[in-house]
Amino acid sequence: MVVSEVVPVVAVLGRGVVDAADPVLTADDLGLTRGDGCFDSARVVTAPSGAARVVDLDEHLARLAASAAAMAIDPPTHEQWRHLVTQALAAWSTPGEAVLKLLLTRGREWRPSGSTAIVTITHRGPALPTTRGGAHTPPRSITAVTLSRGHPSDAFTDAPWLLGGIKTLSYAVNAAATREARRRGADDVIFTTTDGFALDGPTSGLVVARDGVLTSTPTGATGILESVTVAAILEAARGDGLGAAYDLVPVPDLYTADAVWLVSSGRGPVLVTVLDGRALRVDDDLAAKVSRYAGF
Amino acid sequence: MVVSEVVPVVAVLGRGVVDAADPVLTADDLGLTRGDGCFDSARVVTAPSGAARVVDLDEHLARLAASAAAMAIDPPTHEQWRHLVTQALAAWSTPGEAVLKLLLTRGREWRPSGSTAIVTITHRGPALPTTRGGAHTPPRSITAVTLSRGHPSDAFTDAPWLLGGIKTLSYAVNAAATREARRRGADDVIFTTTDGFALDGPTSGLVVARDGVLTSTPTGATGILESVTVAAILEAARGDGLGAAYDLVPVPDLYTADAVWLVSSGRGPVLVTVLDGRALRVDDDLAAKVSRYAGF
Repeated sequence: MVVSEVVPVVAVLGRGVVDAADPVLTADDLGLTRGDGCFDSARVVTAPSGAARVVDLDEHLARLAASAAAMAIDPPTHEQWRHLVTQALAAWSTPGEAVLKLLLTRGREWRPSGSTAIVTITHRGPALPTTRGGAHTPPRSITAVTLSRGHPSDAFTDAPWLLGGIKTLSYAVNAAATREARRRGADDVIFTTTDGFALDGPTSGLVVARDGVLTSTPTGATGILESVTVAAILEAARGDGLGAAYDLVPVPDLYTADAVWLVSSGRGPVLVTVLDGRALRVDDDLAAKVSRYAGF
Repeated sequence: MVVSEVVPVVAVLGRGVVDAADPVLTADDLGLTRGDGCFDSARVVTAPSGAARVVDLDEHLARLAASAAAMAIDPPTHEQWRHLVTQALAAWSTPGEAVLKLLLTRGREWRPSGSTAIVTITHRGPALPTTRGGAHTPPRSITAVTLSRGHPSDAFTDAPWLLGGIKTLSYAVNAAATREARRRGADDVIFTTTDGFALDGPTSGLVVARDGVLTSTPTGATGILESVTVAAILEAARGDGLGAAYDLVPVPDLYTADAVWLVSSGRGPVLVTVLDGRALRVDDDLAAKVSRYAGF
């Protein structure tokens, strides 16, 4: 939960920037009544001067458009999104790290409305220390637990109605799993399949290092979300002479890996140092490299 | 999709009845951003005089409270809900059938707000013909397809974070499955497990008749929702000398059953006459009985 003293920015397609406390959604919006919509999140970096930029906005807009197409939601054009993002950025000047969220719902149920499109920007805190240029900062780390996602690793094969790979607004299970982790005294979750493989986190991708190879869960049959940041890490790792692969990782292999990360566009790669109460190996040099690969 | 010319009623806890076109939810409401909330639906019957009553409101409030507890959402009291429902009913006078929806979200993310509670009433059409008193009306019927829900029949055992049995606002898969059915030329869906059993529909319970026994899918390990109307049907069937059981039904048994219904509180039991393009048996006498058991 982001509880910030910096007032967030909200911009609504057709209305522009509104007060963050103003209601923006009707009671019959299918994004509310059925979680029938999709979203994407991107990193915002704002300079001390107040100039803000969105990292990889094109990639996030492309992914959101793919989500909308898979859900048969008629989305705004990229130009409309860009205009809305520009309006939101113009109202944002808090230096440091922030998260841009693009929300898209199917729109109203009771009368034709077209889709509902909303952009929000929320503060995450001061600018992150960077490992660029050789500065060596301690890796950020969390504890996690494994929790079953309730399905086998091939559940999403030929079943597009299960919405695998799509960042839908139907995230109640992700939120409940995170609460279960907290209840167990951990920070986050690595979901697992009923046939014993690791998937991803409720709001993050998974990267596992072993013997000089970085591995992440394949998308597709597993139903997990494609991660822009995971892809950037694996591509940079390959360019840096490391191995990189999309392969299913058996759950027991997590405990003996050289390092395990949960990765999101907002917070970058974060090391998992304890999993299910067991200490994991941490390779500081590798951690610094992976942060750099992700641009953090 | 309910597209009605009768204007729906919307009532919001803390605001009372509002115009149905007024926005009621902020951009950071977790019901929108994460589908992090729950709901329940009940049948409303309005007399020609305009007097409206909710069928089984107590049962629906109890189920909603159970959903909220399972999601650790702090709900309004039953008295607060009742007051809100009373306000909504007072604004409703369209004779015939309507649906009352009780919506509850975790509330706002950016600042403490408590939960968000909304009641809506939407028209369904003129009063349904009743089979009470011996009048013999043709059974209402639909066509359906089977679609995998992507999980085995025991996926929800000891996994409360998967929110089995809870009417959450995260219904995007249910909506996508219904679209897939339409794409295949059918009206509705019977979900199936990866180990070959029938579950329920996207917005309805399942009842299957064979050899004088009415069977419905067990809740619990299957993750399906408890249905107030299915329970009423099975209880009345038992009282009427028929067999009634909660047992897993293998998918092939659907095609050879004496009758198959999808059941919801809004529309009651509806016969499935064609499944995956194959005609199902229809027992008119049994259909009339089951409609009566459900109070339709």
